Amino acid sequence: MIDINTLKNRRKKLASLINFPTVLWSGKSPSKNFKANHYPFRASSHFLYFTGIPLENAAIRLENDKLDLFMDNPSPDSTLWHGEMPTREDIARKIEANNAYPMKILKDKIDGVATIPVQDIVTYEKQRKILQRPLSINQDSKDIDHQLMKAIISLRLTHDEMALKEIKKAINISVEAHKKGIKSTKKCATEAEVRAVMESHIMSQNMTCAYNSIVTVHGEILHNETYNNLLESGDLLLADVGAESALGWASDITRTWPVNGQFSSSQRDIYDVVLAAHDACIEKMQAGIEYRDIHLLGAKIIAEGLVNLGILKGNPETLVEKDAHAIFFPHGIGHLLGLDVHDMEDLGDLAGYEDGRTRSDRFGLGYLRLDRPLKPGMVVTIEPGFYQVQAILNHPQFKEKYNQVVNWDKLKQFSDVRGIRIEDDILVTETGTEILTKNLPTQAEEIEEIMVE
Amino acid sequence: MIDINTLKNRRKKLASLINFPTVLWSGKSPSKNFKANHYPFRASSHFLYFTGIPLENAAIRLENDKLDLFMDNPSPDSTLWHGEMPTREDIARKIEANNAYPMKILKDKIDGVATIPVQDIVTYEKQRKILQRPLSINQDSKDIDHQLMKAIISLRLTHDEMALKEIKKAINISVEAHKKGIKSTKKCATEAEVRAVMESHIMSQNMTCAYNSIVTVHGEILHNETYNNLLESGDLLLADVGAESALGWASDITRTWPVNGQFSSSQRDIYDVVLAAHDACIEKMQAGIEYRDIHLLGAKIIAEGLVNLGILKGNPETLVEKDAHAIFFPHGIGHLLGLDVHDMEDLGDLAGYEDGRTRSDRFGLGYLRLDRPLKPGMVVTIEPGFYQVQAILNHPQFKEKYNQVVNWDKLKQFSDVRGIRIEDDILVTETGTEILTKNLPTQAEEIEEIMVE
Repeated sequence: MIDINTLKNRRKKLASLINFPTVLWSGKSPSKNFKANHYPFRASSHFLYFTGIPLENAAIRLENDKLDLFMDNPSPDSTLWHGEMPTREDIARKIEANNAYPMKILKDKIDGVATIPVQDIVTYEKQRKILQRPLSINQDSKDIDHQLMKAIISLRLTHDEMALKEIKKAINISVEAHKKGIKSTKKCATEAEVRAVMESHIMSQNMTCAYNSIVTVHGEILHNETYNNLLESGDLLLADVGAESALGWASDITRTWPVNGQFSSSQRDIYDVVLAAHDACIEKMQAGIEYRDIHLLGAKIIAEGLVNLGILKGNPETLVEKDAHAIFFPHGIGHLLGLDVHDMEDLGDLAGYEDGRTRSDRFGLGYLRLDRPLKPGMVVTIEPGFYQVQAILNHPQFKEKYNQVVNWDKLKQFSDVRGIRIEDDILVTETGTEILTKNLPTQAEEIEEIMVE
Repeated sequence: MIDINTLKNRRKKLASLINFPTVLWSGKSPSKNFKANHYPFRASSHFLYFTGIPLENAAIRLENDKLDLFMDNPSPDSTLWHGEMPTREDIARKIEANNAYPMKILKDKIDGVATIPVQDIVTYEKQRKILQRPLSINQDSKDIDHQLMKAIISLRLTHDEMALKEIKKAINISVEAHKKGIKSTKKCATEAEVRAVMESHIMSQNMTCAYNSIVTVHGEILHNETYNNLLESGDLLLADVGAESALGWASDITRTWPVNGQFSSSQRDIYDVVLAAHDACIEKMQAGIEYRDIHLLGAKIIAEGLVNLGILKGNPETLVEKDAHAIFFPHGIGHLLGLDVHDMEDLGDLAGYEDGRTRSDRFGLGYLRLDRPLKPGMVVTIEPGFYQVQAILNHPQFKEKYNQVVNWDKLKQFSDVRGIRIEDDILVTETGTEILTKNLPTQAEEIEEIMVE
């Protein structure tokens, strides 16, 4: 499955960018309610990027384009419980490590190395202890850890063929999962049942979920991770579900469909506004374009659509300048996609934000996770939405600020539209873009058709 | 869903056993690849036992039979992303807390309190910091933490009605999941597909898995948590899959069935040996009986069966004394079941082992997780098995030690039996036992029948 030349190429590219050695840890799975009952293991993405395979409790040391592997051989007890596992030497051969050592040797090889802190706290403590210095993600630092992060970001921002192959594998499974979810909804009584249909397709392909699925008739709760609600005729169901490939590459897809198979006219009206924003954003994407401008375009199309429906009042561009779109579309238009669903978000905004840029304090821009010019090889999501978030609509400050631009009576006619999002994964190419998720329909009538089948 | 009288009764019982205050933390979900991409939250079982509901980032202080709740209200930002959540006061009313405070007040209420370390390392560090002392599970300690553990163990060892109701809910869903898995196997091509059928039933009922499922044609790998293998006619599929109820109570069931719907005669022979051990163990169970004797009975029945098949040579009792059964049945006959699938295993052997007892260093006894006399209200698993574990069979030391008692040629005739386990969950009652998993057949022909349907 792994392509060794790609891995070696990644190591070589890193070596060309830094002049100090690097140690990257893979981490280990955290315990759930007792030590032996652990969460499924997920290797650190930076480690995965250079080794290709998810090894638990391992580390690599990169210097020039050489890779040394550090891991302990399985214990005899482990062989009893987990069967014959590959030895350190087996792994070293597979990933073409230049040397392979037991973990205890690592402490002798850490002079002047840079690293990136892992998420797993047990391993993080080991990192700190062995390196004897604090580890942090500091946007303003100039130390070697920071230089390493910037070097790795410059590699991971755009994807090589192996990465794209993996992302496409994950996407294809997610597309099928969504189709199955859409098809089965009329037979399902609860959110949990639809989620089970979708995730079981991902599981049947021996993949995992790249993030906790959102499958809800309350799409206005943006990160809703419960599945308790009954499906009722007239509800829209929002499903944000994406597979992760066996080698750890993510996909991220959202669709919204009517539980009873037919959008109401109010639902259809808003759906088409969101879809227009989605289509316009993808249409505008190309290398060199600022992603922030894509976001603002999406915001404008949504404002325009809501003006046409009589929900907002005023000139769409002025409305966006006032952040009035964000009453109904409070999040960013999307984010980087790669080994992580929000790629490299473990590094804060270092990956998402171009050098020298920081988060806006504007209500309509502050949640944007990506502010860079697009480059060929980048994969980003485009995910406009419309939500009636109670915390926003009932907020005295917002209510006052936007009282003049919202037609509250008109809005009441759209009370059966609590949350809509349409999300696709887009590859920026040399000549334009490729919609990697194109096999999953976006148009309302196409979705209704799947539900009839 | 929670029964407040039961919760108050548990608090009262604890108060009657200790004369110092207790603080229990719930923990938080660990990050996976970046902070916002976290594992599903699982509250600490000790916390759950007294509060009933899985609150994240909360703590309770118990003194006499009073409960004080410590948690912070959701931030405005959290309301935007996660919707309107219950406030501290809402929760306090629900669990009948005597007082409710923000988390920062906790530091003023920790004089002389005992605690139990949680699994979540971030919270564990907070515990250590606020209490300013090391936290450990020490079998020989006499400090208040240790006294608290023993008090809680004495409560959690036997189950009240609310606990049993939850365990039964989880079991009923697991039984259905197994039936669906058995029924669908002939249509499935891979282990992953059967796993998806089983887990999706659990997911569709809005439950989670109490542990990482084992669904494998290599049952001889005891903790096999990969699902890569193709199903081939002639294989046995071993599935160890159990749901956890919404309030956190576990179930734990294993069945083994033939991929093609029909046990071969060699498979059937060994299956019946394992089943005989399973049935005899359950038959012998009753209050007052030592669980260790149940284990030894299971071992003897397996040895006897293998002697009858010509695989082992000698007198069954002598074989068990020599640990020869453990060549093929290397693990314990079962364990406690409750809020954790190995209940209270976070406390090491404190819960599983009666005061003054420790693990045996015998090969055939050392993996036993429970060594206590049975008591009414206990739920334990009974899970004998037969495995051809390569790490054991090829081990020079074992080979030599057991060369005289194993008929290696005969064993070759059973090469299509790599791993079999049959596992049920049993409640000890005042008058005998109740097989909580009785709705899932154990007999070979019953299982074959399900596969025909």
